Amino acid sequence: MNAKDVLIQKCKAAKKAFTVLSSSKGEQRNAAVLAMADILVKNSFAILEGNNKDIQRAEAEGMRESMVDRLRLTETRIGAIANSLRKVAALPDPLGGGEVWNRPNGLTIRRIKVPIGIIAMIYEARPNVTCDAAALCIKSGNAVLLRGGSSAIDSNIVIAGLLREAVSSLGLDGECIQIVEDVSRESATELMKLNGYVDLLIPRGGHSLIRSVVDNATVPVIETGAGNCHIYVDYDADIDMALSITNNAKTQRPSVCNAAETLLVHTDMADKFLPELKKAMPGVELRGCERARKILTGINAATEEDWFNEYNDYILAVRVVDNVAEAVDHINKHNTKHSESIITKNLNSAEYFKTNVDAAAVYVNASTRFTDGEEFGFGAEIGISTQKFHARGPMGLDALTTVKYLIDGDGQIR
Amino acid sequence: MNAKDVLIQKCKAAKKAFTVLSSSKGEQRNAAVLAMADILVKNSFAILEGNNKDIQRAEAEGMRESMVDRLRLTETRIGAIANSLRKVAALPDPLGGGEVWNRPNGLTIRRIKVPIGIIAMIYEARPNVTCDAAALCIKSGNAVLLRGGSSAIDSNIVIAGLLREAVSSLGLDGECIQIVEDVSRESATELMKLNGYVDLLIPRGGHSLIRSVVDNATVPVIETGAGNCHIYVDYDADIDMALSITNNAKTQRPSVCNAAETLLVHTDMADKFLPELKKAMPGVELRGCERARKILTGINAATEEDWFNEYNDYILAVRVVDNVAEAVDHINKHNTKHSESIITKNLNSAEYFKTNVDAAAVYVNASTRFTDGEEFGFGAEIGISTQKFHARGPMGLDALTTVKYLIDGDGQIR
Repeated sequence: MNAKDVLIQKCKAAKKAFTVLSSSKGEQRNAAVLAMADILVKNSFAILEGNNKDIQRAEAEGMRESMVDRLRLTETRIGAIANSLRKVAALPDPLGGGEVWNRPNGLTIRRIKVPIGIIAMIYEARPNVTCDAAALCIKSGNAVLLRGGSSAIDSNIVIAGLLREAVSSLGLDGECIQIVEDVSRESATELMKLNGYVDLLIPRGGHSLIRSVVDNATVPVIETGAGNCHIYVDYDADIDMALSITNNAKTQRPSVCNAAETLLVHTDMADKFLPELKKAMPGVELRGCERARKILTGINAATEEDWFNEYNDYILAVRVVDNVAEAVDHINKHNTKHSESIITKNLNSAEYFKTNVDAAAVYVNASTRFTDGEEFGFGAEIGISTQKFHARGPMGLDALTTVKYLIDGDGQIR
Repeated sequence: MNAKDVLIQKCKAAKKAFTVLSSSKGEQRNAAVLAMADILVKNSFAILEGNNKDIQRAEAEGMRESMVDRLRLTETRIGAIANSLRKVAALPDPLGGGEVWNRPNGLTIRRIKVPIGIIAMIYEARPNVTCDAAALCIKSGNAVLLRGGSSAIDSNIVIAGLLREAVSSLGLDGECIQIVEDVSRESATELMKLNGYVDLLIPRGGHSLIRSVVDNATVPVIETGAGNCHIYVDYDADIDMALSITNNAKTQRPSVCNAAETLLVHTDMADKFLPELKKAMPGVELRGCERARKILTGINAATEEDWFNEYNDYILAVRVVDNVAEAVDHINKHNTKHSESIITKNLNSAEYFKTNVDAAAVYVNASTRFTDGEEFGFGAEIGISTQKFHARGPMGLDALTTVKYLIDGDGQIR
């Protein structure tokens, strides 16, 4: 069978399993997620064996140690994964419920939440995504087709096998979790075009993975994770706060999407703030506009490309602006609609910024690093949407549902 | 300028107007919609002049009288349009509001509703859509790009000019309503590819218009209005109710998307029900499966194609099934996920049908014709979504919004 036929066969098995899963009770789905947590812990030896193959291959191929570490599982890490699944099980059921209302003609209309169908995920190295994505999908009544990266394939195959076994043990059909063993580029491309089989595709990973999915997919996609985030330091900002937030947003974890990439600073603040910033972030390369380079002599010039760049690295572009309006204009022209923050004591500046910045999350006096399902209190997230449709910002279980109207009558006609 | 440049210029003007509109207060947007209603009534003579050109052209081209009638405006019809705009003004503001919660670290998170941006509509003949779409967009803070059909272009130009004047008179920027005067196919195709300018495209019209937009658009689209709807008559249905609902769903307005196209009937009910149905609907052509044709001798055979066909005409496909499960299987295989109805006295059949049919609206003992924003109590609708993303079923003002998280802190970092 070619790559496409294999995928279609998996989708058909998933669809059949979906019909059972989608009409199951919340308790049954929770029990399945708890069983998934338990089976991982009980079989950690088998998982570590699979993971060890991935690690050996990665080391033989000369993978960077930081990347090898992301790939590595340990008993402790498996325990942490199991705990995160138990947290998912404890979240409220995202299905059913809903409002009920009556119409003057006697019809009763009920709006309920239902699962979407078959959710496909294309993602990169870390094997914990396999567990999280499967748990979030099962909890929300969706079947899932998991296409992880080639470097984690041996871990993922063992994990998915265990998760399927756990689901089956609870009277559901384990086929609702499908793993794509073929990690060729061809198989990924075919997956993006499985219209009629895949109801939603969520890419998770680096910029080029997301771009490739958005550009090539013909199935519905939720675009996630592109983050060109800004910090704007207003004329009257508390300098210590501005330094602490800028430093945190840039350096606490530069590789993630909610890290800051450009600093904008009010011209009346720039002379004081920029030299202190340079001192406070010795490991960060600053690239400045002309005005910034007059204050920080010797730093490189930022080009138009820099304003659009998501460095994901210890580099920060710096631009001096005349006022909050100019800051907002710069942001709306260059951002990816992810997360933006203003540091100010002025209520008008804060209001103007919140009203006019076009982004999923707009902060006043806080780090952009908080845009995250757990930090927002959603319990778990399947990604951070940077589009405006269906879901925007951190996506919890609710983003994996759609609605259905159930209407009861006793013979009503128009 | 070529078609694309003209469209881009309109989008740029709309975007500028959007920044004012999107931060306006609800009262100002309501006042604008009321002014739109008033200006139409006050200038009905000018509108009728424009409409008369459309009517004369249509008659000269030999348009069917029923279509000419859809196109025709009268003082009464303009009054009705104005009233529908006043109803839109009276609806609750879809923007702002939202939940507020606090996090243990002191952050306050507020989730508010914001407009989407520039909404484009591609639609067919009736000039009232121009008014309804503009009113719904203005009310929800969105700019709108209206591309109506060529047959109504003279009416639409007059109407849009008046609506822009009304909006401007209230201190907003009339450029938030844009009309595409170029009704060539080229201009429509360019509009579908205005990525970066058009935030959402909603097609409204017949099957081929919707198909063309869904197949060709690269901007986000909400697919509307494809309706292959079914009535399933269960073994114990009240025969009079089943006849009345089937007749209503098929014949009250066969051209609309929530009309029924296929009747499924339980084998134990078919002998009694089908002959009475034939008698009750003399003007409807029935096309049957083999078992139906043994009962209704002389009717045409339904082919596999018929089960997929949205006739929008006085034709009904008829199939005899063994039980509710077979009915649901038939529906899920052939439907467009719009509206489906079961006629039954049996609670288990009703529950099975509601749980397992995959459609936006699932009815028990009522006509599918009720799937409509006004009938659902939403006040007005911009279309009926047959997709699962962002909006499903009748789309009211809420479907024209997205969310934004506003986070207030006092220096929080991670």
